[in-house]
Amino acid sequence: MTNKILSQVKPSLQRLIPYEPGKPIEDLAREYGFSPSQIIKLASNENPLGPSPKALDALERNLHKIHLYPDGYGYYLKEALSHHLDIETENIVLGNGSNEIIELLFHVFATNEEDEVLFSKYAFAVYKLMAELFGVRFKEIADVSFSHDLKAMLEAIGPKTKLIFIANPNNPTGTRVTNEDLYLFLERVPDEVIVAIDEAYIDFVPDPPQTLSFVKKRDNIVILRTFSKMYGLAGLRIGYGVASKHVARYLERARQPFNTNSLAQIAATASLEDIQHRLLTLKITEEGKKRLEENFDRLGLPFIPSSANFILVHVGDGDFIFRALLKKGIIVRSMKSYGLAEWVRITIGTEDQLSRLLEELPLALLSFKNNRPQ
Amino acid sequence: MTNKILSQVKPSLQRLIPYEPGKPIEDLAREYGFSPSQIIKLASNENPLGPSPKALDALERNLHKIHLYPDGYGYYLKEALSHHLDIETENIVLGNGSNEIIELLFHVFATNEEDEVLFSKYAFAVYKLMAELFGVRFKEIADVSFSHDLKAMLEAIGPKTKLIFIANPNNPTGTRVTNEDLYLFLERVPDEVIVAIDEAYIDFVPDPPQTLSFVKKRDNIVILRTFSKMYGLAGLRIGYGVASKHVARYLERARQPFNTNSLAQIAATASLEDIQHRLLTLKITEEGKKRLEENFDRLGLPFIPSSANFILVHVGDGDFIFRALLKKGIIVRSMKSYGLAEWVRITIGTEDQLSRLLEELPLALLSFKNNRPQ
Repeated sequence: MTNKILSQVKPSLQRLIPYEPGKPIEDLAREYGFSPSQIIKLASNENPLGPSPKALDALERNLHKIHLYPDGYGYYLKEALSHHLDIETENIVLGNGSNEIIELLFHVFATNEEDEVLFSKYAFAVYKLMAELFGVRFKEIADVSFSHDLKAMLEAIGPKTKLIFIANPNNPTGTRVTNEDLYLFLERVPDEVIVAIDEAYIDFVPDPPQTLSFVKKRDNIVILRTFSKMYGLAGLRIGYGVASKHVARYLERARQPFNTNSLAQIAATASLEDIQHRLLTLKITEEGKKRLEENFDRLGLPFIPSSANFILVHVGDGDFIFRALLKKGIIVRSMKSYGLAEWVRITIGTEDQLSRLLEELPLALLSFKNNRPQ
Repeated sequence: MTNKILSQVKPSLQRLIPYEPGKPIEDLAREYGFSPSQIIKLASNENPLGPSPKALDALERNLHKIHLYPDGYGYYLKEALSHHLDIETENIVLGNGSNEIIELLFHVFATNEEDEVLFSKYAFAVYKLMAELFGVRFKEIADVSFSHDLKAMLEAIGPKTKLIFIANPNNPTGTRVTNEDLYLFLERVPDEVIVAIDEAYIDFVPDPPQTLSFVKKRDNIVILRTFSKMYGLAGLRIGYGVASKHVARYLERARQPFNTNSLAQIAATASLEDIQHRLLTLKITEEGKKRLEENFDRLGLPFIPSSANFILVHVGDGDFIFRALLKKGIIVRSMKSYGLAEWVRITIGTEDQLSRLLEELPLALLSFKNNRPQ
């Protein structure tokens, strides 16, 4: 009987390798007997300051209404975003995290097995995951600097190319493309190919590219944004896409009637108003980044200069260092699943969190050198 | 340029008619100038008592952690469900509402355009919506009593049938199939066809069918459940599927890494413990159902005897009655989009809510009779 069911499973799903998330604090607490408060997590690029106090206030006031279905359209959040971005509400699509917008793009534009999507070799893992889920072809475009080779991506476009993903800044490498290179790329991409610019980390960039102006004049440019990073709402799952009205209309059709939850909509709307929280987040991110870079230099660890709130650093054996730090109650991200086995990715935490990391990291490195076969 | 993009859109999406949700309270407040507290919503089968106090307590204690990603696997909720259902955690898949489990079933089992799914003609609208989204064929099986003709469904199974949906109790009609008929059906369904039994309203049934025992012995039976109805958590989006481990494994692969939000997991886990809240909900549902039935009889309105927390009632012109009640601050559900234009669906509310409804409904009916062309 089992074989009969398994033969019905879509073949691409048989091959799909699930996403490896940052280890949850509660998992580590259970496995190693820590109290959750002893653990610091620098593994998922969350905002170490926590959510905006304005978001918490708004949530407290609205908890009693969670028995009511969310407004599937997201009227108030769309109004707030429209004001924030200076774009019309009809250009906005809300998602259960910006990850869901990626999935909606596949639903609308790339579902046939001969369809093809393009992304960078070291880009965010969910692009490939979705290509495998939908069973479409994909090309991973290499880049010597772990970023995006936009020229090579342009050349890779073929008659079946439906979607191109550009993560800018990119996760997990922290790299960004220059605004000029991006503009040139966007101008040259054929009109019938959708370019999704994933700007999950754009709030950490001092001089972001003016991608919204492209959405206003081109039908094939889609911007993805999230409240999970700068805005500190990763647990609630809320992100959005900005697209031409034509494309937004179809993305809306492809979503579930109630894809975003009501508390996420409320918290996101309140967070947009909290400029203070974002400025403070930027400040500790910049200070922490400088401190990590100086310490990596002192430790002789190569790293990729980052435009986001994390740093990819070369530690020799990422899994070893990941496990050594776990034992000390510190969660960083092993990069093996990204094909970067010698690296770890470390989120820029608070001053105290980084002090603990910088106390333990040299010991972990030493332990690695002592254990390494000579 | 626009045409170039539109030509890229999946054809089935061009035809898809989006789901028409119950009107949100805030929408009506904006449009008619009501204060939200003046409005009663009996349109989406939410729990009129609100969420469980235990859920609210748990949420309050955990709001400060919403900057952290959810545990994508949902360890604690799965443990609680495993205990609650007496089934192993590996049989459980969490979804962003049980609607998402429907979508995951399509991802795994029905994505080719020659694949076929079966459901009842008056079944929950999302089955058809998903069939259109995935561009697969579907057959709607008619039933004289607005329920499921299981015999006809069995006969309709063809070589390309991948999925069958049975909503029990069914929404929007409130009907259920007898346990004996369901058991017979399940025993006769071929092993390679997945049967998804949507039990969103099963908590309102005094003698529910023992469907979980089928999951334990058959690979092709999947149960869908939700925390949106009895458990009062519709706003948070949390539901689950129970399936054989083989099938559950593939459903897990097809989900997004963080498909369910952390507050939903926390609230659902706490809600499972609150038996008192469920008993009280059952009590007011039973009392309210009796009261509505008696009043419908007095008003001469035919209705479908309901096994759920709502009643489908024949009012002549559903849209007219819906709009007439809207003006009084009462939201019920027009059934036009279900092909039941003469009916409205009314959620069983609290005693006070039903008093207001029963005060306004006769006036709305009178207004309909007076306005009707002779």
